[in-house]
Formats: sequence, structure tokens, C-alpha cells
Amino acid sequence: MTATVPHPATAPDSTLFRSEHDLLGDRDVPAHAYYGVHTLRAVENFPITGTPIAAYPDLVTALAAVKQAAALANRDLGLLPGDKADAIVRACEEIRAGRLHDHFVVDVIQGGAGTSTNMNANEVIANRALEHLGHAKGDYRRLHPLEDVNAGQSTNDVYPTAVRLSLQLAADGLLEAMEVLRLAFAAKAEEFADVLKMGRTQLQDAVPMTLGQEFAAYAVMLAEDRARLEEARALLREINLGGTAIGTGLNAHPEYPELACRHLGAITGVPLSVAGDLVEATQDMGAFVQLSGVLKRIAVKLSKTCNDLRLLSCGPRAGLAEINLPAVQAGSSIMPGKVNPVIPEVVNQVAFEVIGNDVTVTMAAESGQLQLNAFEPVIAHSLLKSIAHLRSGCLTLAERCVTGITANREHLAQLVGQSIGLATALNPHIGYEKATAVAQEALTTGASVRDLVLAKGLLTPERLEEILHPDNLARPHSAAVHG
Amino acid sequence: MTATVPHPATAPDSTLFRSEHDLLGDRDVPAHAYYGVHTLRAVENFPITGTPIAAYPDLVTALAAVKQAAALANRDLGLLPGDKADAIVRACEEIRAGRLHDHFVVDVIQGGAGTSTNMNANEVIANRALEHLGHAKGDYRRLHPLEDVNAGQSTNDVYPTAVRLSLQLAADGLLEAMEVLRLAFAAKAEEFADVLKMGRTQLQDAVPMTLGQEFAAYAVMLAEDRARLEEARALLREINLGGTAIGTGLNAHPEYPELACRHLGAITGVPLSVAGDLVEATQDMGAFVQLSGVLKRIAVKLSKTCNDLRLLSCGPRAGLAEINLPAVQAGSSIMPGKVNPVIPEVVNQVAFEVIGNDVTVTMAAESGQLQLNAFEPVIAHSLLKSIAHLRSGCLTLAERCVTGITANREHLAQLVGQSIGLATALNPHIGYEKATAVAQEALTTGASVRDLVLAKGLLTPERLEEILHPDNLARPHSAAVHG
Amino acid sequence: MTATVPHPATAPDSTLFRSEHDLLGDRDVPAHAYYGVHTLRAVENFPITGTPIAAYPDLVTALAAVKQAAALANRDLGLLPGDKADAIVRACEEIRAGRLHDHFVVDVIQGGAGTSTNMNANEVIANRALEHLGHAKGDYRRLHPLEDVNAGQSTNDVYPTAVRLSLQLAADGLLEAMEVLRLAFAAKAEEFADVLKMGRTQLQDAVPMTLGQEFAAYAVMLAEDRARLEEARALLREINLGGTAIGTGLNAHPEYPELACRHLGAITGVPLSVAGDLVEATQDMGAFVQLSGVLKRIAVKLSKTCNDLRLLSCGPRAGLAEINLPAVQAGSSIMPGKVNPVIPEVVNQVAFEVIGNDVTVTMAAESGQLQLNAFEPVIAHSLLKSIAHLRSGCLTLAERCVTGITANREHLAQLVGQSIGLATALNPHIGYEKATAVAQEALTTGASVRDLVLAKGLLTPERLEEILHPDNLARPHSAAVHG
Amino acid sequence: MTATVPHPATAPDSTLFRSEHDLLGDRDVPAHAYYGVHTLRAVENFPITGTPIAAYPDLVTALAAVKQAAALANRDLGLLPGDKADAIVRACEEIRAGRLHDHFVVDVIQGGAGTSTNMNANEVIANRALEHLGHAKGDYRRLHPLEDVNAGQSTNDVYPTAVRLSLQLAADGLLEAMEVLRLAFAAKAEEFADVLKMGRTQLQDAVPMTLGQEFAAYAVMLAEDRARLEEARALLREINLGGTAIGTGLNAHPEYPELACRHLGAITGVPLSVAGDLVEATQDMGAFVQLSGVLKRIAVKLSKTCNDLRLLSCGPRAGLAEINLPAVQAGSSIMPGKVNPVIPEVVNQVAFEVIGNDVTVTMAAESGQLQLNAFEPVIAHSLLKSIAHLRSGCLTLAERCVTGITANREHLAQLVGQSIGLATALNPHIGYEKATAVAQEALTTGASVRDLVLAKGLLTPERLEEILHPDNLARPHSAAVHG
Repeated sequence: MTATVPHPATAPDSTLFRSEHDLLGDRDVPAHAYYGVHTLRAVENFPITGTPIAAYPDLVTALAAVKQAAALANRDLGLLPGDKADAIVRACEEIRAGRLHDHFVVDVIQGGAGTSTNMNANEVIANRALEHLGHAKGDYRRLHPLEDVNAGQSTNDVYPTAVRLSLQLAADGLLEAMEVLRLAFAAKAEEFADVLKMGRTQLQDAVPMTLGQEFAAYAVMLAEDRARLEEARALLREINLGGTAIGTGLNAHPEYPELACRHLGAITGVPLSVAGDLVEATQDMGAFVQLSGVLKRIAVKLSKTCNDLRLLSCGPRAGLAEINLPAVQAGSSIMPGKVNPVIPEVVNQVAFEVIGNDVTVTMAAESGQLQLNAFEPVIAHSLLKSIAHLRSGCLTLAERCVTGITANREHLAQLVGQSIGLATALNPHIGYEKATAVAQEALTTGASVRDLVLAKGLLTPERLEEILHPDNLARPHSAAVHG
Repeated sequence: MTATVPHPATAPDSTLFRSEHDLLGDRDVPAHAYYGVHTLRAVENFPITGTPIAAYPDLVTALAAVKQAAALANRDLGLLPGDKADAIVRACEEIRAGRLHDHFVVDVIQGGAGTSTNMNANEVIANRALEHLGHAKGDYRRLHPLEDVNAGQSTNDVYPTAVRLSLQLAADGLLEAMEVLRLAFAAKAEEFADVLKMGRTQLQDAVPMTLGQEFAAYAVMLAEDRARLEEARALLREINLGGTAIGTGLNAHPEYPELACRHLGAITGVPLSVAGDLVEATQDMGAFVQLSGVLKRIAVKLSKTCNDLRLLSCGPRAGLAEINLPAVQAGSSIMPGKVNPVIPEVVNQVAFEVIGNDVTVTMAAESGQLQLNAFEPVIAHSLLKSIAHLRSGCLTLAERCVTGITANREHLAQLVGQSIGLATALNPHIGYEKATAVAQEALTTGASVRDLVLAKGLLTPERLEEILHPDNLARPHSAAVHG
Repeated sequence: MTATVPHPATAPDSTLFRSEHDLLGDRDVPAHAYYGVHTLRAVENFPITGTPIAAYPDLVTALAAVKQAAALANRDLGLLPGDKADAIVRACEEIRAGRLHDHFVVDVIQGGAGTSTNMNANEVIANRALEHLGHAKGDYRRLHPLEDVNAGQSTNDVYPTAVRLSLQLAADGLLEAMEVLRLAFAAKAEEFADVLKMGRTQLQDAVPMTLGQEFAAYAVMLAEDRARLEEARALLREINLGGTAIGTGLNAHPEYPELACRHLGAITGVPLSVAGDLVEATQDMGAFVQLSGVLKRIAVKLSKTCNDLRLLSCGPRAGLAEINLPAVQAGSSIMPGKVNPVIPEVVNQVAFEVIGNDVTVTMAAESGQLQLNAFEPVIAHSLLKSIAHLRSGCLTLAERCVTGITANREHLAQLVGQSIGLATALNPHIGYEKATAVAQEALTTGASVRDLVLAKGLLTPERLEEILHPDNLARPHSAAVHG
Repeated sequence: MTATVPHPATAPDSTLFRSEHDLLGDRDVPAHAYYGVHTLRAVENFPITGTPIAAYPDLVTALAAVKQAAALANRDLGLLPGDKADAIVRACEEIRAGRLHDHFVVDVIQGGAGTSTNMNANEVIANRALEHLGHAKGDYRRLHPLEDVNAGQSTNDVYPTAVRLSLQLAADGLLEAMEVLRLAFAAKAEEFADVLKMGRTQLQDAVPMTLGQEFAAYAVMLAEDRARLEEARALLREINLGGTAIGTGLNAHPEYPELACRHLGAITGVPLSVAGDLVEATQDMGAFVQLSGVLKRIAVKLSKTCNDLRLLSCGPRAGLAEINLPAVQAGSSIMPGKVNPVIPEVVNQVAFEVIGNDVTVTMAAESGQLQLNAFEPVIAHSLLKSIAHLRSGCLTLAERCVTGITANREHLAQLVGQSIGLATALNPHIGYEKATAVAQEALTTGASVRDLVLAKGLLTPERLEEILHPDNLARPHSAAVHG
């Protein structure tokens, strides 16, 4: 993959630069760029994935919200002049509206614990604010990326806060997509409520149930997973803004944390709170590990569901052939007319990716040392990717697969009629040992359980019909056990 | 590893057998054995780990509680005669008191979705109950393992319920151990509350903090992890007892689920409830995946904490040497006097094992098909193992390491005094760019930040002392930013 | 799990102790114990799993072999008197013959990079050697666990060497078991060579093949995996004996490494060699990570194979029902006559465990620092466990499942006859687009591909029969494409 | 992430379409597009990552090579007219030269086992070949994507072959990058060959070594990893081209596999061979799992190396401070002058990602069913990503970090002089127990080992100096043990 980030040598107006300096010396920055020298160094230092942080608009937006809140808090505390604060706020609002995102060019996988992402934000905001104040980009004596935009802040409180915020925005989207999928399954559960079929345990014929019950279970699973995701999302609402470098709040005003948090909550509409122990909060990746675990849980169950859909639609003639998935493309370049379960298959793959990402998050979290976890960028990258792909997967599965599923009703009814699993329903009436004998004879001879029971005079025809009535097979009922 | 399970050929009185039969034919069972032919088959079929389910006493106890609750519910519903029910209850109580555990001989990793574990319980209980009724072991016409002990039940509702119950019992033990460890860290936090030291980010000197703050963070992490474990434990309290084979409740009395659940709650003291959708509950591994994710979270943070303890005690002369871990054994067979951080090291390894177990649980959960997950035994095995080892790890860490930690106070104070990180505290007073210049000069020349600031006349001595006063360095304060 | 390791308070003759001392002070050791004070400390320090290293006889045997080789090398170099060397050698040979294993009592998960395992071996060997010399256990002035048994050695070269050796012994057993399983599949491949069936891709009917081809593929997979395991085993033959503490060979005679390696090779019959860079070899976990990766590969394919066996035997009436697995136990406590694929299921679970263990090994390997990996005990534990369980799984699968598999030949033939997948064979003769039309019409109307082709006059009956002849369907042939 | 794939509604000339049809009906395709209706469906079906397969140029190039080889083989066998073959070959060569890549628009994560990727290639090649033949795009009666470009092929042999080929191309790049890094470490090993320092085990001071030995170990590790990667690469050279749908070679000429393989070898310069059992080869993911395991091994050791570099450079004043990493950017937005180890940090994160990808590959491989693995796209995606990022990581680490590392020689020498670890070197001369006493006294009193040994008269000054001479400490020597 080639890097897609702008570079002086290839920028549109590569002859026009401005000079900036940092502790390593002077560097030319493209004149049109809102980012500055710190960002430039980072782009050069991290040519890893070719994907810039702009690929995660929720993260860019969240960063701007944090910077805006910080500026307002600093203004309130008299630590930032009103005109500077106004200009910074205006720049942040533009970013939150989706503008200037393409100046967020640092690679998504980067060293430095997010410092380069924070620096990128500081520089873009400073340069845009300078323009609002009527100054040229790069005229940092007027408004400084670090001393003004980053005032009272550290990467180590700004970046985790922004990541948490962006994950909440992203999680909202996933929750919506899961609800779309849940409703699709629930609608099918209703449609198939009266379709009797054989249930299976360990891939062996078990006892009857309805296809509606089968699909209802998928809907219930999603409802439970949504509840877990909401819980994990709530843990992200505790932030460490104001802890500065290591959580001791060095260089931050004592009132700053609460004030900045309040502004940030007002800006984003998210009910945030300041962590009780900022030293702990600065180094703690627990909420990310928890979220990743829940995403993995969602992936596990989505994958299981897709495995089932593929299995139930196995066929068309040499498989279970219980349901039909809608055809969405030709299935084969060699086998004419073949239609494959490509939508569940792609969701399976998303699930495998999410489960792998969970291991990445785990390792990155475990590797944090002392007062800070230096590997938060790959944690953010993994989580934002998992959420985005799960969201796409849920919507795709709902819209291109589940809603179009049909049942092979006659085939299903036939399988129930000839099933040996019916013997189970006879247990309370003729006992486990006799029922076993009937089942074994049915299996060996090919005869039906029904015929054998009658032939052996184990039950009267009327009693047998009552026991095997569909209404009695798929749910608990007193007749079966009391008769 | 050799199997430790009893086998007819090696049993003490191998000449004395009773004959039992199942659908595969007749088999001799040791006369002294409470288990029967189904268990015997399973022992032969699964010679995998050599560890019998008796290794998990919580699981055996939970199984007995479930069987006891089922017998009581069946008795209440008139489905099991009082004398049989009484004998079954008495046998179950004996098992719950810790007797007969060594007759639970099936391997912890087994095929069959727990069927062999359930069969093992049915047989041990039946044979013990037979004795209570004055009959011989194996006289199943009087009281049958399946038709009486397993009445109205299926492995598929009994086993998951027992596993959930056993995990709660085990989790209680882990919660206690975590509290022991949390208190140990909290005590050290208080002891070290006044010990100023350099905080570090990305393994580079950052800004000052107290050693007490550092240890307090470990205590807070544990408190948060305990809260997560309590939440995950609560999810285990929803059971599927009464769902029978696939959750449709076939062969169960309609009132049985609630009744059995109520009895089980009374027997165990755990506030249980019946799942809303038993079909879903029978196949759903969500609560196990969630628990595993939380155990992984605990492991990740324990491991991070142990990494820190090992790092801070690195030395004695060529390392950070900030703290001393108590010596608990000679550290080396070749290096005299060497003492190693063996307790944190063993906890790290437990953490790695738990994280691996999480992947095992994930794969097993994802591989479930249709109405049942056949791989629940390895899920139970992995979770019970993770919980037991984490519990041992927490207690060992608390008792053999944390409580004995001492601080090298003078060394720590000296490091703060000569630190370049002090320049950060000057930021609000002399600006980021000047502070950077001072820091760089200090680094190059070996001079102290303090001396350079005074030599350059950047601050008065009084102002400098105020800024660098320990009380002002380790927590937010208005003086720093308002001065 | 309760610890099963002996403890002074519970040892048989707990009133009889001898006193030993280490750098922490004096301690009573049970008089009957061959281990000493260092082992005692370790047992107390690591009450984690309750499983002692004796559970891995290959490891205990390998340790004794290393100690024996070291003693012989030291004797040759004049660094150990002949009588001491002889006594040590004799003790080591006893251990290698399987005696004294129950004195290896340290927990399998332990801190200290294996130091306690090495100390355990040093002490058992020393005390047994003392007896051979006519002295009492504990009389270390006569023969010392560290100065004599451990002479010229360090845990850091002894332990990795022993682990590597034990893994080779264990791997030999796994290779044999895989060969048993491979032969079982190969026999079935021959038995089913003429059974035509539908092949499936993406769980959809594809094109015909023979059941023999299907089983032959499983045999080939195992052959390839065996080749990979042999390669990984070869990497274990490079040892770091003689590197002592960190690979610099401090305190070891320059000729010692080659000499000890030669002795060890002679004792064990394994073609060992000394690593080229002992500093690298001492810290490098590469060979273990590689082995773990190969075990994971074996697990992945065994699991895939078991998934297939379970799927192909899905039924008996509502599934694919292509093959029958032998019944090895009753399948259900509620469903009479149900037989489940319990043997493939248990192998699936072993595979999931091995895959989880690979993550444990990965994390432990990644966490090594500087000159040594302190977490090698959990690496050894995970690998030895994975190998042992895979071995049991392969043997169980071969003997209790694969050899008894039968085919439902008529059913398979019938599925081929009615398959739409036959349309693929017509591609080269009537083109992809016409073949697609035929396939779609067959699917919609339920007609057979054969009938439709003839009805539409797309091919003559003779030509059609030739194309669809079984001999032509399951392997490449020129007729199909040239006709 | 927004999808970057072209879509009719947003294509430049959206008013100009051509009509194409497939088994689902007619669709408009942008007139300028070389891809066709099958690709269009796939783009709509898989809106997952937004990353098109064009992001992996090695994969696109490999696909074109396979198609070119197939066309040549079909031409040789008289199955494809010469003019069609020529046009196809010409189109393939253009793609291999890097043209038309932006018409490979299907998402990297896709259902269908690679069918859509194969279809995309078939369509782009067909349409470009049509132009070469003087026909309009879409005029498939003249040259058909499936009947001509895909003649005698199936996705199931084409796609795995292309993936294997692309991985080899990518692996070549990684091997080169690893060699660059290895040379960088080797150069440092030479530069630091005479710098004596304390080695550490378990983070505790152990015995002396040279910094050169430490860096040499990193170079040796890389050499070994390169050897493993070369072995894994060799396994990719066995291909299943000619197996068609399931490996039975249905519709392929018997001579086609060898012929196509020979052409492909000639085109690419890679020594390919046809797999011995094509049924097995079609479903087998073993070579990918193996490769992934080796990439994980590389990641594990790179990460360990980076952990070490970060640890050794910990400071500047409150850490080990043994080496200095070159400053490549400002380290902090709040801490002036702070320079962080950002390059090792980014490589750590790449390693965590690769390790997570290995789990994804594992799950996808394990989930394959029967004759084909439907999840190969996510396997290809994960492996290509891992290789690309590891390659970037190695180059970045070499160029921006390792080559600029400097040593703090005086500090290192001082640490050796005051080390207690020197006591180890006295073992052979004064015994383990006396050496332990000296070490403990040194630790307690702060005295040096050297002084204590002389004060106690344990050795003469001359003998002591000889033993502690740098030349004798860092490598085996007979003096130490014979003296």
C-alpha cells in the first residue's frame, strides 16, 4: 500500500512553502497546509499503513470537540484571551462540521501515544484560527499551537478523551445497525411462527420446534448484545481531561477538569464525567479492553448466526435446504446457476477480523508501562475499525440477506413427520428405555416412530396424535406430562 | 500425562463387578462405583487430559444442587414420588457436602455437550439414593438415573445451569482475592503517600508524582475490575432450567421452570431467574464470552501491574531501583545473592494463560451450531481454570509480594532533584519554547534545570522554589497557573 | 483446585525433618524428601495450578539427561571428581528410568524462569547421589546441589535445554499418533474410492467427486502437517548448554559446551548441536513460537476435519446423512436413541485449547526482556499440554471414530443423480450461459438437469451419458473438453 | 470510513452506461468501466472496509499473471483461438505493468471465496482484450469474461493460486527489509564490540557482557527469522491451478495443470509446482496458517527487540540510560525537551496488529468446510496487510532508529564496576555459598564486591583482577575455571 498522505514534494503547489521549526531544527511546510512541522515529522516517521487519521472522521471530530472545550475552559479561567479563544472555537466548529479533515494526515498507526495526532490537531486549529484572526498560517507568535491551542493540556489527557468520545459516536452507529438487524430477524420470527421443523443438537436431529423460534433466538441474542454494548459505552464516559501529563494535573488549574468536562458534555451532548483518580485514568486501558471484549462477543454471535444461516440453506438438493437466502450475485465462475451465501460469508469474515483485533487490543493494553500506555493509537485504530466493519456487516446482513429469506415449508414438515426425534416426546408416556428401543428400531428399519408405537400397541392412536400435535411439540404443555 | 480416573481393570476390588447396559450393550461396572455404564463409556471415550471433573468441586457441587432442585420441583408437581425425591435430595446434599466427589471421573474435556457429566451425576445420585432406599447399587428398576434423577430434564438445560452456578461460586472466590490484593495496594499507597518520585511516560522521565499515587492507581484498577466482574457474574444468574433439549420445554411441565428455579435459588442462596427465551438461552454462550472478556481484562491489568513492579524494582544497582520486592527464594543457581521478582513473574504467566483461555472460549462459543453449543465443556474448563489461577495469583501477589514492598526514598528524591522533567512545571511561567531550550541545555550539559533557570534569570529564586515545591508538583494547584 | 504437592505439614512422616538453609534462613525439610529447601520455598511461593512438574515426565527425564551430561563433561574436564560424577550419573539414570518423579513437586506455572525446576532437579539428584555415596540426605558438604550437581551450569542454559529436549520426546509421540490417524483416513479413502457423491463449496452443491477423494484429502493434510512438525522439531535441537547465565559462558570451561552437548546427544540419541550465538540462544524463544505455530496449524486442520465429519454425518433423517460415525455412547439423557458425534467434538475442543495455548505462548515470548525470558515455564507448560492433548485426540479420533465410519452409498448416489451441479460438466459443451439457464430451470421446476438437456435437445443422449459417466466426473479427462 | 470504490451514480460520466446482464437480470455499468456487472454486484454487496483490492497491487498483478498463464495453456491445447489468447495476454501484461489497477474495485473483505475478485479480473481483462481486438467494451459475444478469460478455470483454483503468488512477491519485500534491519543491528554490534555492560536476567543485574553482544543477538534473531520466512515462502509455491471447482479438475484438460503451471512459472520467475492432491490443495489453508505463524514469530521478536531498545534508553536521568535513540520528533505537547522512543513504539504496534491478524487467519482457516474455504479473502487481506506493515516497520526501525543509536559508555562502565553481579564470576574460585555471603553484604552495606573480597582475604588482588578482567567476563575462558 502506498501512503496517501500529502508530502511537500508531491503537494499541489510544491514551490510554495513556509518555514517552521521544532527542537530538531527548521523545516519547510507546504504553504497551503494547515498542519505544521510536528505533523510533518510524524508523517515522515510513520509510513506504516498509508491510512491517515482522517479515515476516522469520528476521531477528528472528537479531537476538535476536546480542543474547543479546553479553549472555553481556559477562557473562563482567564488563561486564554477572548479573541484567541473565539478563533480557536471557530476553527474547531469548522472541523466538527467536517471541514479540514484532509489536513489530518498522520498515520493511524503511530508511535508517541497519540502525540502526533494531538500535534496535528493543535497545528490545524492554530493555523485556521490565525486566519480567522487575520494572520498568516505559521505566525505562531500571534497564536501558538502548543501555548494557546494546547494550553493546560497534554496529549495524555486530550488524546484518550478524544478516543473515548469517538468510540461513543461510532458505537451509536453500531447500536443502530444492530437494531436494524434485530428487527429483520424479529420480522422473520413472526413470519415463520407456524413453520414446524426439526431442531438439532450436536448436528443430530433432536426434537421439533418452529422456524419462528429459531429466528426469534437470533433477535433476542442481538437485543442482549446491544444491552452489553450500551454498558461498555457508558464506561467510556469517564474521562481524564485535566490530568495533563500523568494525571497529577501539573500545569492545569484546579477548576479546569470539571469545567472542561462540562463544556465538552455541552458541545457533544454526551453525559461525561471526570474520573475519580486521574493518575489511574491516564494509564488505564480497562474501558477499551472491555469494549473490545463486547465487540468480540457481538462478533462471536453474529458469526454463529451466519454459520447457522449458511447451514440451514445448504443445498439446494444435497443439503438441509430448510431456508433459501436471496440471490445477490452469481455464485461461481465455473458452476452455472450456483448461488452462494456470500452475505453471511462476508459477515463471518468481519467477525474473524474483530476477534483478531481483540487480541491486538489485549496485547497493546497489557504492554502499557507505568503512567501511560504508549500504544493507544493501535487500540483506537483496532476498535474504530471493528466498530465500523461490524456496523457495515449488520446492515448488509439485514438488508441483503435476512429480509429476503424464505422457508421450504413442505420439506420442513416432511422432515418432522419422518423424524426419530419424535420418540423423545413419548418419554414421559412410555419411558426412556422403551422409547430408546422404538427409536433404534426406527433407525434400523426405516420405519416411522408413529407406526412402530401403534404397531406395538404402546399408545392409542388418539393419545399418540395428541402428544405429537404441533402445538404440543414446540412449547411446554401440561398434557404431555400429565396425560 | 496418565489418566487418573478409575478404570475397572485397576480398581481396588477389580474382581467384583455389577452388570449394566445401555444402547451399545452390557458392561461390567466396578461394584463399589457409584457411577454406571454411561460414565464408564465416557471415561473410555475421552482419555484426553487425565483431569476428572472432580478437579472442579464447584462444578460437582452445582450439579448436585441442580439435581436436588429438579427433584423437589418434580415432587411438588406430583411427577416424582416422595420417597424417591427424598432419597435423591439426600444424595445430592451429601455431594454438596463434599462427599462422593471422587466418583465424578469423566474427563474435563469431553465430547457430547456435557452429556457425560450429566450422566455421571445422574448415576452417582441414583446409586447413592438407591442405597438410602435400602436397595443395591445398579437396581435401576427401583430408581432410575434417567427416568427419575433426570426426570423432566435434559443435559442441555441441566449442564449449562450447573456451569453457570459453579462459575458464580468460583467468581465469589476471585472477588475476595482481588479485594485482598486491592487492600494490599491501598495500604502501600498510604504508606508511600509522601514519597516524591519521577513519573514516566513512554519510559522517559516525565513529571513528579508520589509513589503513593502510583500504588493507589493499582488499587483503583482492581476496584474497577471487581465492579466489572460483579456485572459479569450477574449475567450468569439467568438460567435455562426447564428448557429441556432445545429450549422448547418438551417433556417439562409448564410450571416446572419457575418452580425448579425457585428451589435452586433457595438451595444455593443465589438470586436466579429463568431466561425470557429458553430457545435462545439454550444455545447462547454470551454470558460465558462476557465473563471470559472480563477475566481477560483483569489479567491484562494484573499483568501490567506486575510488569511495573518488576520494572520499578529493576536493579539492585544497574536499574531503576525505586522499590524493593521482598525476597522469597534464592534467585539463581549460578548468581550468588541474586533475588528475582518471581511472584510478579508467576502472575504474569497466569495472565498469559487467562488471555489464551479467552481465545479458546471465543472459538468454542463461535463454533456452536443451531440449537446447542456442543463445546461447552471446554468453555467451562477454561473459565474455571482461569478463575482459579487468577484467584491464586492475586492472593500470592498480595501476601508474598505487595505487603513486603519497601521504597528507596533517598534515591527517589535524588532523581526528582536532578530531573529535566521539572521543566514542564515551568511551562505556564516561561512558556513551552523557553522551557524546551532549558531542558535541552540541561540534557546536553548535565546541568540541573533549577540552576539554568536561575542563571538565565528566568524566574526569581522564591518563585522557582514555590513552583517546584513537592506539594505543588504532584497535584493541581492554582498557584502554578495563576502566579 | 487443591494443590497436590507434598507439604511438610501433611507429609506421611511429618514429625521427621532435616534442617536446610538458603539465603533466607533455615527451614525444615521432610526427612524422606529428596528435594530440599529451594524446592520447598518454590512450592510455597507458587500455589497456582496444583499440578507439579512431575505431570510432564518428558520434562523430568530431560532434566536428568542434561544433568547427567553436565556431570560427565565436568568429570572429563577435571572439574568434578570421579566418585561424585558417578553418583550423580547414577541418580540421573534412575530418574530417567522413571523413579523419583514424585519428588519433582514444583508447580508447572512458576516464577523465576525455571530456576525452581532446576533447583528441584539439583536437590533430588544431590540427595540421591549422597545416598549412593553412603551419606545422608542433606549432607551437602559431601556433595552439593549447586556446587557439584549444577557445576558450570545456570538455570538459564539447563532449563531451556531440558525443555527443548522434552518437547522433542513429546513431539515424537505426537508424530506417531498423527501417523495412526493418517493411516486410518487413508484406509477409508481406499474403502470409499468408488463412492460417487456431490462435492460442496460454500456449503452449496458443487460438482461430483468420490468419498474416497474426500477422505484421501484428510490423509494428505496430516502427512503435510507431520512434515511441518518434523521441521519444527529439528529447530529444537540447537541448544544453549554452556552459555550459563546470559550466554557469555561465564564460569564455564571453553570446551564445556561442545563436550556437554556431545554427552547429551549420546545419552538421549537426539542429534543436538550448540547454538552459534549463545547470547542470542539464551534469550530466544523463536523455536518455541515456531513449534506453537505448527501445533496450531495441526489443530486448525484437525478441527476442520472434525467439523466436516460432524457435518457429513448430520442426521440421521433431517441432515446430509452421507456417512455414519460409530456409536460410542448414548447421546442424550432425554432423547432416546440419539447418537452424537462425541469423538470429533472432543477433538474440536482440544483444537480450541491448542489455539488458545498458542496465544499464551505468543504473549510469554513477546514479554521476554533483555538477556532472558522469565516466562519460559508457561511456554513449556502450554506446549507440553498442547502436544499431549493433540496426541490423545489423534489416537482417539482414529480408533474410536474414523476406523468405524460407514457410507450411505445409495443416498449419496441418489443425490448426485438429482444434482443441479451436473450442469457444470456441460459448460464446455453447451457454454456457461446455456448451462446457467438449464440450472435455473431445474432449480425452479424441480426437474433434473439430465431431463432438461435432453428435452431441449442440447446434447444427444449418448453424448450426455458419456459426459456424466462417473469416471469422467471425478477426475480430469480429455473427453470432457475435447468432445 | 467511506467507500472509495467507483459507483455508477458518482462516476465522472454518469450519463453514459452500457447494459450487462447476469443471472439476476440487467444492470447499467459505467461505459468507461473495464469491470462489468458481476463486479458491480459485488461492490454493492460488500460495502465493508472501503478498501478495494487495488490496495494490494501484488494481488492484482498475480491475478493477471494467472490469467495470462491460463490463456497460454488453453491456446496451446487448442481450446482458445490464437487471436483471443493474444488479446487476453496483452491485457494481462498491461495489468502486470501497473495499468488498470483502479478498475479492481471489489472490497478486500468479501463473501464468495474470492469469486468476486476473480470475476473482477475476468471482466477487466475481457473488456481490455475486446478493445485490443477492435470491439467495444461489453461485446461479450466476441470475447467472454467467463467462457474465454476464465476458460478451464474456477475461482477455486485461480484465486488461491493468485493469493499464493502475491504473498511470495510481498514476502520478497519483507525479506529485503529484514535484511536492511539485520545489517543495521550488525553494524551496531561491531561499533559496540568493546563496550562492557551489565547483562540482566529477570530485570535484575546479572553478569557482564558487551553491548556489542547484545546488539549482535538482535541481528542473529533476524537472520533466523529470515530463514523461517524463506521456508514458509517455499510452501506457497505449490499451487492448485487446474483443480477447477473442487480439485477434481472437472472441465479442465488433463494436461492443463502442468502446462498452466509451467507458463505461470515462466511469466513470474517463481519456481512453482502443481500440488500432488488437488482436492486437498483446493481446501487446504495450511500454507497460509504456516506463513501467518512465521509472521507472528517475526512480530514477537521484533516487539521484544523494541521493548529492549525502549528499556535500555529509559531516562534520560531516572532510567537505565544505557543507550540513546536518535530524536526524530518532539516527544510531548506539554513536557519541553522530552524525546520519546516513537519508532520502537510504532513497531511494537505493528507487531500487536500482526499477532491479532494471526488469530483472524486461524479462525478463518478453521472455519473452512468440506471442499473449499470460503473465507480466503480475509486470510489474504490479513496476510498481505501483516507483510506490508512489517516491511514498513523494519525499514523505519533500521533507518530512523537503529542506525542512530549511541551508547553512554562511561555510565555503562561505572555500572559494571559497582555491580554485585561480579560475585558470580567468583563462584568457581570461592564457592557459591561464600559468594552469596559477599553479595548479600555488598547489597546491605553498599560496599563493592571487589572491596569485600579483598578485605576478607578471599583472593589475592592479582587473582581478583585477572578474574574480573573485561576479556574474561564476557566470554568463556579457561582461566576462570582452572585458576
